[in-house]
Formats: sequence, structure tokens, C-alpha cells
Amino acid sequence: MSGEPGIDLPPLYPLLYEPLVRRALEEDLGRAGDLTSDAVLPPDLIATASVVVRAAGRLAGLQVALCAFRLLDPSAEIEALAADGEDVEAGAVLATVQGRARTILSAERTALNFLGRLCGIATATRDMARLVEPHGARIVCTRKTTPGLRALEKYAVRCGGGHNHRFGLDDAVLIKDNHISLAGGLKTAVERARRAVGHLVKIEVEVDSLDQLREALDLEVDVVLLDNMSLATLREAVALAKGRAITEASGGINPQTAAEIAATGVALLSVGWLTHSAPSLDVALDVA
Amino acid sequence: MSGEPGIDLPPLYPLLYEPLVRRALEEDLGRAGDLTSDAVLPPDLIATASVVVRAAGRLAGLQVALCAFRLLDPSAEIEALAADGEDVEAGAVLATVQGRARTILSAERTALNFLGRLCGIATATRDMARLVEPHGARIVCTRKTTPGLRALEKYAVRCGGGHNHRFGLDDAVLIKDNHISLAGGLKTAVERARRAVGHLVKIEVEVDSLDQLREALDLEVDVVLLDNMSLATLREAVALAKGRAITEASGGINPQTAAEIAATGVALLSVGWLTHSAPSLDVALDVA
Amino acid sequence: MSGEPGIDLPPLYPLLYEPLVRRALEEDLGRAGDLTSDAVLPPDLIATASVVVRAAGRLAGLQVALCAFRLLDPSAEIEALAADGEDVEAGAVLATVQGRARTILSAERTALNFLGRLCGIATATRDMARLVEPHGARIVCTRKTTPGLRALEKYAVRCGGGHNHRFGLDDAVLIKDNHISLAGGLKTAVERARRAVGHLVKIEVEVDSLDQLREALDLEVDVVLLDNMSLATLREAVALAKGRAITEASGGINPQTAAEIAATGVALLSVGWLTHSAPSLDVALDVA
Amino acid sequence: MSGEPGIDLPPLYPLLYEPLVRRALEEDLGRAGDLTSDAVLPPDLIATASVVVRAAGRLAGLQVALCAFRLLDPSAEIEALAADGEDVEAGAVLATVQGRARTILSAERTALNFLGRLCGIATATRDMARLVEPHGARIVCTRKTTPGLRALEKYAVRCGGGHNHRFGLDDAVLIKDNHISLAGGLKTAVERARRAVGHLVKIEVEVDSLDQLREALDLEVDVVLLDNMSLATLREAVALAKGRAITEASGGINPQTAAEIAATGVALLSVGWLTHSAPSLDVALDVA
Amino acid sequence: MSGEPGIDLPPLYPLLYEPLVRRALEEDLGRAGDLTSDAVLPPDLIATASVVVRAAGRLAGLQVALCAFRLLDPSAEIEALAADGEDVEAGAVLATVQGRARTILSAERTALNFLGRLCGIATATRDMARLVEPHGARIVCTRKTTPGLRALEKYAVRCGGGHNHRFGLDDAVLIKDNHISLAGGLKTAVERARRAVGHLVKIEVEVDSLDQLREALDLEVDVVLLDNMSLATLREAVALAKGRAITEASGGINPQTAAEIAATGVALLSVGWLTHSAPSLDVALDVA
Amino acid sequence: MSGEPGIDLPPLYPLLYEPLVRRALEEDLGRAGDLTSDAVLPPDLIATASVVVRAAGRLAGLQVALCAFRLLDPSAEIEALAADGEDVEAGAVLATVQGRARTILSAERTALNFLGRLCGIATATRDMARLVEPHGARIVCTRKTTPGLRALEKYAVRCGGGHNHRFGLDDAVLIKDNHISLAGGLKTAVERARRAVGHLVKIEVEVDSLDQLREALDLEVDVVLLDNMSLATLREAVALAKGRAITEASGGINPQTAAEIAATGVALLSVGWLTHSAPSLDVALDVA
Repeated sequence: MSGEPGIDLPPLYPLLYEPLVRRALEEDLGRAGDLTSDAVLPPDLIATASVVVRAAGRLAGLQVALCAFRLLDPSAEIEALAADGEDVEAGAVLATVQGRARTILSAERTALNFLGRLCGIATATRDMARLVEPHGARIVCTRKTTPGLRALEKYAVRCGGGHNHRFGLDDAVLIKDNHISLAGGLKTAVERARRAVGHLVKIEVEVDSLDQLREALDLEVDVVLLDNMSLATLREAVALAKGRAITEASGGINPQTAAEIAATGVALLSVGWLTHSAPSLDVALDVA
Repeated sequence: MSGEPGIDLPPLYPLLYEPLVRRALEEDLGRAGDLTSDAVLPPDLIATASVVVRAAGRLAGLQVALCAFRLLDPSAEIEALAADGEDVEAGAVLATVQGRARTILSAERTALNFLGRLCGIATATRDMARLVEPHGARIVCTRKTTPGLRALEKYAVRCGGGHNHRFGLDDAVLIKDNHISLAGGLKTAVERARRAVGHLVKIEVEVDSLDQLREALDLEVDVVLLDNMSLATLREAVALAKGRAITEASGGINPQTAAEIAATGVALLSVGWLTHSAPSLDVALDVA
Repeated sequence: MSGEPGIDLPPLYPLLYEPLVRRALEEDLGRAGDLTSDAVLPPDLIATASVVVRAAGRLAGLQVALCAFRLLDPSAEIEALAADGEDVEAGAVLATVQGRARTILSAERTALNFLGRLCGIATATRDMARLVEPHGARIVCTRKTTPGLRALEKYAVRCGGGHNHRFGLDDAVLIKDNHISLAGGLKTAVERARRAVGHLVKIEVEVDSLDQLREALDLEVDVVLLDNMSLATLREAVALAKGRAITEASGGINPQTAAEIAATGVALLSVGWLTHSAPSLDVALDVA
Repeated sequence: MSGEPGIDLPPLYPLLYEPLVRRALEEDLGRAGDLTSDAVLPPDLIATASVVVRAAGRLAGLQVALCAFRLLDPSAEIEALAADGEDVEAGAVLATVQGRARTILSAERTALNFLGRLCGIATATRDMARLVEPHGARIVCTRKTTPGLRALEKYAVRCGGGHNHRFGLDDAVLIKDNHISLAGGLKTAVERARRAVGHLVKIEVEVDSLDQLREALDLEVDVVLLDNMSLATLREAVALAKGRAITEASGGINPQTAAEIAATGVALLSVGWLTHSAPSLDVALDVA
Repeated sequence: MSGEPGIDLPPLYPLLYEPLVRRALEEDLGRAGDLTSDAVLPPDLIATASVVVRAAGRLAGLQVALCAFRLLDPSAEIEALAADGEDVEAGAVLATVQGRARTILSAERTALNFLGRLCGIATATRDMARLVEPHGARIVCTRKTTPGLRALEKYAVRCGGGHNHRFGLDDAVLIKDNHISLAGGLKTAVERARRAVGHLVKIEVEVDSLDQLREALDLEVDVVLLDNMSLATLREAVALAKGRAITEASGGINPQTAAEIAATGVALLSVGWLTHSAPSLDVALDVA
Repeated sequence: MSGEPGIDLPPLYPLLYEPLVRRALEEDLGRAGDLTSDAVLPPDLIATASVVVRAAGRLAGLQVALCAFRLLDPSAEIEALAADGEDVEAGAVLATVQGRARTILSAERTALNFLGRLCGIATATRDMARLVEPHGARIVCTRKTTPGLRALEKYAVRCGGGHNHRFGLDDAVLIKDNHISLAGGLKTAVERARRAVGHLVKIEVEVDSLDQLREALDLEVDVVLLDNMSLATLREAVALAKGRAITEASGGINPQTAAEIAATGVALLSVGWLTHSAPSLDVALDVA
């Protein structure tokens, strides 16, 4: 497996993800548990299983997945053979689990549901990041995440080599079109924001025309979100904003359009698709 | 909007989904709330907003989405203009919300994250169901769902005209390849299951060859899961099982392959793709 | 102690019961903890205690009970001397606990409250199962369980040699008298159910007359619940249903009536009494 | 219905019991909800149902039971026709519920499980209280309650005309045999307790001989628990303690022995049986 | 009452604070509820009570406090007579509550515990803000808050006219002395931070000497935290940083030292004392 | 360090405090975790840190604080060098923590927030207890505690050598002025309480005049709360109550007034100030 040099991932504390894995196990076990494994397998049968990927991709969330096995059988021997942020080939063994056969099969689906989704996001992010890197641009994710899984999905974006936009409504100011029209204008909105928020909060403004962009730049906002602009307008916008604000493009960006958008010189591409629509990576459990 | 005649959806109790919406709002509001709306909009400004779809699709989860607005502003006037299970055109207004502008914008993303995902599943299900219906087959979903959202996603499949497979490990017996090899054979596994489980539990067995299928049919199981078979083998399997067990096909079924698989005469197509990889439907909030 | 050969119990995961034990300890310790033990016993005094039964019975829930000691004192040495599903004599020592005296006494009542109740259910089930086994019948429990403890109580029934009916409203279809009258007839109800539910869901219908039974059998339901029938009618019903549906008797079945009901040839006796009214087994903690 | 004059019950706040009812509903509805009612009954069918008792008894927990209907259908019209603490005849209608038929049947079992258990405790308590009242004694319950339901069960004892002993380990000091032997004697134990606990905490001591009783009385404890004494010894103990401490009898007290124990002049009879083994009262739901 | 013109407070959603009030009520009511009020007051007695301040101060958290009365008695009539952010005189009536006497007294302490603490913080903040405003400086709070109450306490600071620093570790980068020494120098630390964090995250660095300050300014950080500097050094630091970074003073700032520190020209005074040590405001409940 | 001989503290179970520490860590880490430490420190850097006090005081809550480090890094080596209830000098090292540098810094603030608050209460209690001990009086705390932290704060009072009053509304009866006026008189109130409450519940009455005191004494209540009396009246009240009821003084007692109040001979001084307004003790983390 070939890792990506230079990815330094934040720690993923069990404090954060264990309650989610616990809830997912409860959701799958229900009240009566795994009817099949409990009926079919002898209670003391020990098995060894491998967590494998069926398709090449970028790894994310392996410890989250393995936590499902550990929670059901604390005495299982679990060995991770790869690490988040690595690229893995189809067929690669990511981890082995040795323990009671019943327990391993009962935890399987929960483990794979987390792993497939997070690797899917990381892989999609990696692929888009590779398209835009030659242009010096970065991929950032949005708040269009699965309800309840935001922190994990934002972490998967990091595993893919992407960067994180706001984690929630309380990280930074992002003045969008609805705010501007309801506030009665971009200038009023920015001035109110500057007065209200703390000294550690940055201000970003969404603009959809060059005129609006000029207004925002004159107000010295930190970041401009260039929404749904044509490639030509985007190029002009980047030129206008140069040295005055960070530029970020948004609006239906996907693997087909990312490279040409990055080629306009924009610094950041904001991509909701990564977390609301990227397909899962195919992962499975093989019992020896 | 044109609804689908004959869909009778189960009730979706707030008891079930309200805690999920609550947690999603907390996830988005964080500790400091919506910095932008609170700074930019006057506290008493009233706004009217429309929940709209930007692309045609099948509706699912509208009440779940609207719950986000209600939880933040119990006095908001909320009117649903469509119902789960309906087909909607691009641009259709699904609901209107009138209330405090701050609150509407603060709840927007949470509402749309639920709605986009659930409509995405319903739409994908509808599209596949339409492909297989001419052959008399049904689409069923799997346990490959988003951790924590299984009940909602299974409901969205129903909205799309699909049917539900097991909701968890405790609904029915499904003996898969790993169970068979660990139990020491298909016959042993089925006999153990029959002895152990209650009188209201059905037994399904996964087979990957016609020999295995014959063994399962001789054991009089209720359902056979025909895994990853070629179309030719599938046709033969359907013929063998006729009148003896319900047939279900599985293994990488997607919109490209569904119709030809259904044409083999199989009764059910089991599709994990619907809940782990179907893209989100594009929904948005327009402020008047 | 003499165990029952052939009982193969499902695993009871701490994931399931630990939160219940934790809540029960919190309920008993309150805000100020065990005033008596904390005042009367030196903090470092070590004691050895035995969990004993004062009356003969069938064991269920021993690990649940011992979890109370472990949660308060993770360093306590706990040894189980018997296993769920075993028959134990009056005076038998089920487990020993060595640890801080304060902690052992503080956890005592919580441990015994779980153990007494679950053994009470297992013992009552065993006694009824012995009455009906000579007739080839089985005891099954109902949904008349203690709110919050259903999974544990259903497990205790298994320990007693009984079998489980539905774990909840979502396991199987059971059409009862109220459903029939509200739906406008047994036939309509069964047909609607068959159309609506998944391919892994069985259908049971409650009938209270031979005419209703005939109607249900003609509809080929999986199980018939013969409610509150006289012994004579029951015998006739069993004859009618032979080979067409599984038969299950219900209605005020208790230790006095079980044997004669089983003698009618009915396959299953459904007994709410086991979980709503069986007396607790007398268990205690002896400090050496 | 004839109420008991003079019972003044404490309020039972929804804050306390609603989370328990909510959890019980989730336990019964599972992930897929009420398969039967949702399949068999039209979504908009309105029904009227009566909550009835099939056997005479004392009412407790009616609002808890009705909360199940309200939580699933906030628009249901619910009318209570009786009140906790009342005596009701077999066949009495306790409440009526008008609302969606599906919802009423889905909430039925949860409502009845609470009601049957709590009325069972209240009825058993009433019956024992009537046996001991002529002797001027009172029935008190213990901490031998169902895990998670202590507050509700203690309330049911009050509805039955009984009184409450400690609600938990932190209400009062109760020095039992294990404490005495581990502390190295009754005197040491009482002295340590007196030193340690607050000025609002009473001290009770369990004694099993007249010698121990004399020692406890000399130490001026507030209450003496006379454990498992013969009737003769009990009479003597009562005479000794007269004017010096409140007397309480314990040890296997049940409906057969309560009257003769009360006749010894003891002030309180402590009865674990009420909450760990009293049978449920037969309650049901009739749909009009 | 005289309000402060220009304070525009963020909304305080019940979604946020209701769970805290609920938990506090449970903490106070325990298992047996309010023994005194339930025993002493007739169940149907209606009372009118006034929430009053015994000392002059700045109001914060009134809705949080009133929520306690509403949660116990949803039918109580509650009227707020003042609003958060207002200055109130000793003896002022903040709200009236009319409802069941039992319930009002049972909720009293919970309501007052929230109100006294939050008003205490708001009042202390107001007093310090008044000291520094003439110098053009602002008061900001820290993360030294009561565990579990951070969002409420940060809101109380806003009510007092103060401003909020980071709400948690994930809002902004604050490189402190321990980070610098462990990272191997200020320069390394800042460069790593700049590489790692998102485009909406500001960077603040703690410095304790003018040399360190120069190094930080050369690295173009957004904010410098001037820790424990003498007044003279502080003045020099402010001069150095002018136009290059926002200046913030910290280190044991209290009501005695705030004015002279503000006089140095520093922009912000960071005050842990407000949330970890400010005394409660004296609030009470008067029953008419 | 010099401990206080004779303090025997109740055990503080992780069952109780771990959920509070967990919630506090979640509150501080938010969704994105510790941006600074994760960016600035290498993932595998090991550090050794000391928890120190900057000011002399009485220790309380050390294990609660250390739990924060353990929850984030279960493999950290943590050594406590002092114990709750000890007096510590300024500069004393209370514990050392060796583990991953990132984790130690991420847990720091949560640990210190608990420790500073609890030591602040213990220190304030110790100081007041020393003032009143020469007079044979005791300090007791009230229910004026921080919402959610009552058990911990009452424990801190014990660490300081104080004693605990009621832990909640359900421990004992305390009839206050509002109860008396609403009940229609002190006598009625006491008689109702005596009739209603259990045999293990003591009764305390608040009085504010000598006449009321005489009335309460004639009713043989257990404790009298002498509210806001002058020193002269207090002395008279103590004389009147001698041998008839325990005396407790309340009303604005603080470090300035405690000694002279104790000198009146009153047995207990009830001090809300300890838990609602005592300043935090200055604690810190030094990285070697």
C-alpha cells in the first residue's frame, strides 16, 4: 500500500465515535440479537476474519469500523494492517480479527457500513484533489453531511487530502444570498457581522456577480464565495480578488467540472457532492 | 404533482425521528449557534421561505425536514404542499415556512440534509422499481444503510415503491456463505436454525451454485438468495425454485443491470446501492 | 447442580444490559450514595461475599447481576460458579465476589433485583415447560413484559426452556380481534397484510371460533392463535389445523391449566403470566 | 367506583415518567413499527377505545398508561374516568381514547404493561393494608423493586394505602447484619453512622435477637428492624422497644402471615413481596 | 428598569437549555419528589409567585429560569417582566408565575440556581466592561467555565456587554506557552498551524516578552495574547503591535486591575474570573 | 502536604462522575477537536505534565480531574501525588501525567475546570469550618449548587470538613416561610408533614421569630432553621431550643460573619455562599 506523504491527520478519539458505533450496533442487533449466527454457530467457535477492500481506494475510518468488533467482543484480537490516509489496492487486507465466530459475524455489517461510507468519501475527495492540485487549488467540503455523522465525514475528507470548511453554523460567518436580501444589502450585512462577532471569527461572503464581488472586496472581507459563475467570470473574479481576499468557487462542482474550475486560479473548490452523494467503497469481511 | 396510486406508507412517528433531528440541529448549531444569521438579521424580522426541489424526483421525509423548523421555532407556520410518495417536478414547492428569519435560516441546512438524502433514496428506488415491474419483480433494500438512520432510509425505500428486507439481525434468519462454511455445511446450518428460532421466523439461505440451491430447496427453506449468479444460471435457478421457495437475486445490482436480472423471472432484487450509494436529490430553500 | 442438556442460549451482550445495570445503580445510589456502608465500613476493608439462592430454581441473568459489582468496583474478583440455564438447589452458591466491602454491599440490592426477577421467570417457565413437554407442546412468552426489560425477560424465558414469541410489533404480523373488527373482517385483514409486508414476515391470526379458524386456514396463514377456547373446541381446532397451520393456544394459561391444554395437541401455549406475574426467586448475598 | 378517603397522593410529574413510556414504546415499535396495524388498518380510520379492568382492584398509574397514547398521537382525545387510589370493579372503564385506530392499537400493549403492573402492586398493597390496619400497623415497601421503575412502584404502593421505606441507599441509614459483622459489632456501627451522617438522617438497625435489640435501644437508634423473629419474640421485642424506637418487622411477610404479625403490635411491616412478586392486574383495551 | 442600548443578543433556543433544566429538576426532585410541598400543601391550591432580585444587577437567563416552572406545570401562567441584558434595581420583580402552589415551590430552587449564577456573571461582566470602555477596550471571557454550562455562561457574558473568546478548542487556533515549548519554538508552531488549519480559522499566539511578540508579529498572526505583562511592557507591546495584530491582555485580570490595564491601549482583556469566580446574584421567589 | 486527620470521605464512583467529564470534554472538543494541539504537535510526541496548585488550599476532586486525561488517552500514565481532603501549599504538584502531548493539552482545560471549582469550594468550606469549630459548630451546605454538579459540590464540602444538608427535595422535610403561609400556619404544616412522610424522614422548620420557634418546639420538630436572626435573638433561640431540637442558622452567612454566629451556640451554620459564590482555586498544568 502506498500512503500519501504529508497527510497529518487529527486524532479521532473513541470518546467521539464509540457512541455512534454503539448506537449502530444496537440498531442492527435489535432486541433479539443476531438470530442467524446465534442459531447456526456453536457458542465457542473461534474464527479469523479479514476486513478487505474489493476496489482500490483511499482508507478512512478503519478504527471506527474495528471498534464494532471490540465493543461486541472485548477479548477479540484485532490487528490493523493499514492506516487512514493510505491508498489501498483492490483485494488488500485492511485488518484481521480473531475471536468468537458469532460475534465477528454479528458485528460485520455495522463495521462495514461505517468503513464503506467513510472510504467512499475519502476516495472521492482524493480523486478530486488530484484533479485540482496541478492548478494549486484545494478541495474543501461543506455542511451538506449526513445528519449525525458530520465529524466523521469531515475527517474522511481530510483522509482524502481535502480540507474542511465550517464544521457548523458557529465556526465562522458565511453571508449567503438569503442573508443579503433579508438584511437589505451586502454592505449592511457585512457591517453588522463585523460589529457582532468575536475577534477570532473570519467573515466570508457569497457573491454571484462581479459587481457584488467588488462591493465585498471593498468591505475587506476575508473570503469570497464565488457562486455558480461561468469559467470566464470566475477567471475575472480571481483576478479582481488577488491579494485582497481568498477565493472559493461553489455550485454543483463534481468530478467532471473540477479541473477546469481549478484552472481559473481559484484557491478553493467547495464540494457538497463529496459528502451527500459520493458512492460507498466496496469493503467486505472474509472468514478464513 | 402526480402521486403513485396504491402506495400505502406506514406512519412515521415523531417519537422516532424527532431525536435524530434534534441531534442534527445540535450538531450544526454547536455551542455558539448561527453566528451569521444572529449577527446579520434583526431578531424580529419575519420571513417566508419555500422548500423546493431543483430536480424531478420522488418525495420522502418531508415531515422529518419540516420538524427542524418546528423544533427551533414552535410558533412558525408550516404548510406542507406535497406528501411522501409523490413524484415532483423540478422547481416544485414542497412546503412553505413562515416565521422568524433567523430561525428559518438556522434550521435550513439540517432540514435539507435530511430531505435530500431521503428523496435521493426514494428517487433511486422508484427508478429501479420501474425497470423491474414489467417483469413482475420487486426491489428490496438491505442492511447496508447509514449508521443511525436505518428506519428512515427503509421508509424512503417504501416511498420509492420498493420493499424492505430485514430491518436488523433479529427479524429473520439469513444464512450466508460465512455461516455455512463456519457451521460445516448448509444442511447443518439450516437444521440448527430451524431448531433454534421461533415459530414466526422465516429462514432464507444464500446460495451461489445450482447444487447449493438444490440442497437448500430440499431443506424447504422459505427464501433463497441467489448471489452473484450469471443471467443464465439465474434463469435456471428460478426454474428450479418455482413453487418451492421465493427467489431473490443479489450482488452488485445497479440501475444498469436491474432490468436484465428481473427478466430472469426472479421475484426480488436485493439492492444495497440504494442506501449506500444513491446520490442525494437537489433540494433548496428559497426566501421570498 | 444439574444443567438442562440441549439448551443453547443466545449470547447476552454487555452492550445490551450494562446500560440497564448502570441506570439501576444510579437509581439506588441516588445523589449521596450508600450512606450506611460509607459510614459504617472502613474504606479499605476487603470482604468476600457469596451470591446464593434460598430456594431451588432455574438460573437466568447471573452475568447481569454480577455486572453490578463490576461496575462499582472494576478491580473486584468475581467468579461465577454456575451458568444460566442450570437448575440449582436451595442454598447453592452461584458466584463469589471479593473486593472492597463498601462496594459489595452498595451493589448488592441492584444485583439481586435483576437476578431474583430473571430467575423467577426462568423457574416459572421451566415448571410450565415440564408440564407440557410430555404432550409435545412448547411454552412461548408474549409482549406482556416489564417496560424496559423485554430483551432480558425474553432471554430468561429461553433459560427456562421456553421459546419466544414476537419481541415487538415489528417482528411478525399478528392480527387480533380488534384488527379484524376495525378492518371489516378477517379476510380483508389477511389480504391487506399479505400485500403490505415483506417476504420474510410470517402472518398469524387470532381466532375465537371454529368458523373463524376455517376462514383463516383457507387464507393459508402461517399460525393460528386459538384464543380462550374450551378444551373440547381446542381439540377440534387442532384437528382442523393439522398440516395447514401451526396452532397456538392463549388466554389465561397458568400452571394449573397448562397440562390439560397441552393435552389437546396444540403446538404452542402462549403465556403472559410468565413475565407479568411470576414471583421472584429468593436470592441473597452472604458475606463470609 | 369507591375511592379511599384520605389518600393524598404525591404528584406524578410527566418529567419523571414520560422518558420511561417513550423508551417502552421504542422497545415495542422497534425499527419497523407496528407491522400489523399499519398493514391492516386504513391510515385515517378513527376509533374509540376503552381502557378496562377485567378484575376488581386498586387503581395506580392511569396517567402513565394514557401517556403512551398521547405520545404516539398528540391529537388523540383522551378522557380519564377514574383516578389513582380508587377501588374499581371488574369491568370498569378507566378511560376512553379516541383517535387514529392504527395509533391506538400500536400503543395498547405499552399502556397496558405499565397499568397492569402498577395496579397489581396497588391492589396487593391495599389487600395487605386492610389486614394490618385493624391492629394499627402500616405496610411499607422495600428497595426490592423492578430495576428502572422504583419511583413508579413506590408510588403504586402509596396508591394502595401503603407507605414508603427508603427510596434508595442515600435516604437514611439502615444497618443490616452484613454491616454489623463487617464493622465488628452493632455498637461500633451505630457510633460510626452517627458521626458520619447529616443532621437530617435517621438511623435504623436490623436486629435478629432480643439481646441485639436491647443493644440497639441503648444506642437510641430511631427505628429497629425486627428480622425474621417468631411471633412470640416479636411481641416481646415490641414491648421492649415501646417508647424508645419505632418497630418494623421484616422477613418473608406475605398475605398469609401479615395479620398475625400485625397483631404483635409492631408498627410497620416491611414487605418486599409487593414489588417483586405481586401479580399483575388484568387490564385490557376494548375497541368500540 | 434601564436597558443597555445597543446590546443585540443571540437567540437562546430551548433546544439548547431545556435538557439542562430538565436534568437540574431531576437532580433536585430525586426519586421521591418534593416531600415538603407534597405533604404540606393541598394538591389544588393555586398560588402566585414573583421572581425578584434582592440586589441590583444585570439580567441574564430569565427564560432559562422560567423554563423550570413550565416543565413541571405546563399550564402555569408565566409572565416575564424584564428581559436579558437589562439593568435591574434591588427589589425588582422579574417575572410572575401563577399555578399550582406545590409545583411552584418544587421548581423554585432549580429556577433560582440558574438565574443567580447567570445574572452573577452578567453583572460582573457589566461592571468590568464599564471600567474598560472609556479606554476603548473590550472584555472577553475564556474557556474557564462551569463544566456543562459553557454556552449559557458565554451568553451571560454577552448579556453583560462582554464579548466571547473561543467557545471550545475547535473555534480558532490559540498557541500557548506549552504548545511553543513542545513544538520547539514559536515559529515552527505558527507555521505548522498555518499549514494545517482551514481558510476560515484565525491564529492567535500567546507571548510573554517583547521579543516573542516581535517574532509573532513577523509571522503575521491575527491576534497576540499578551500574558502577565507589567503595565509598562504592555504599553510597549501595544505600540509594537499597532496595525499589525489585535492585542489581548490576560493573566489574573480582576475588577481591581482592569481599568489600568485597559489604559495601556490594549484592545481586549481576557478574564477567566467572570465565569469561574464571579459571585452569584441574590435572586428569590416571593409568594403573594 | 498536611492532611486533616479524621476526615473519612465517601467513595466517589466513576459511575457518577465519568459521564460529567465526558460531557465536558465533548463540550470543549466540539466537532473539530483541538485545532491547535493537533496542528502544532507531532502525533507521537510524548510529554510529562504536572497538575499544580498556584495557591494554598484544600484538595477536592483530583480523581475527577484526572479522569479527563484518562478518557482521552487510556494509555497515559497518571500518578496522583495527593488525596482529596488534604491541605496543599502553593506550588504543590498534585499529580503527574505522562502520555501523548496532544492529548494532555487537549484535556487540560476540562481537568482544570473541574479541579479549580471543587478545590475552591473545599477551601472556602475549610476556612469557614475553622472559624466555627472553636465554638463547637458545624458548617453545612445547601441546595444552592451549580445545576448538574450537586453531588460533586456536596462532596467538595465534605472534603473541606463541612457537612451536607439535604441533597434534594426528597431527603427530608424542610418547611419554609412560603410553605407556612400557603398551608395556613406552622402547626397545620407540621401536622400534615408528620402524617404524610415515612418513618425515616426528619422534619425541619424554618422560623424567623422566637414566637415561631416556640410553636415549632412545641410540635417537637427535629431541627429548627433560625433564619436571618440578629445575634442576640439567635442566642435566645439557642437557649430555648436546647435539648429540644437541633439548631441551625441561615441567612447571608459568609466568612465575615461566621465566627460571631457560631459564638451564639448554634449547632449548624447553613451556607449557600460556599457553592454559589466561592471563588475557584488557581490550578494549572505545567509541561516539563
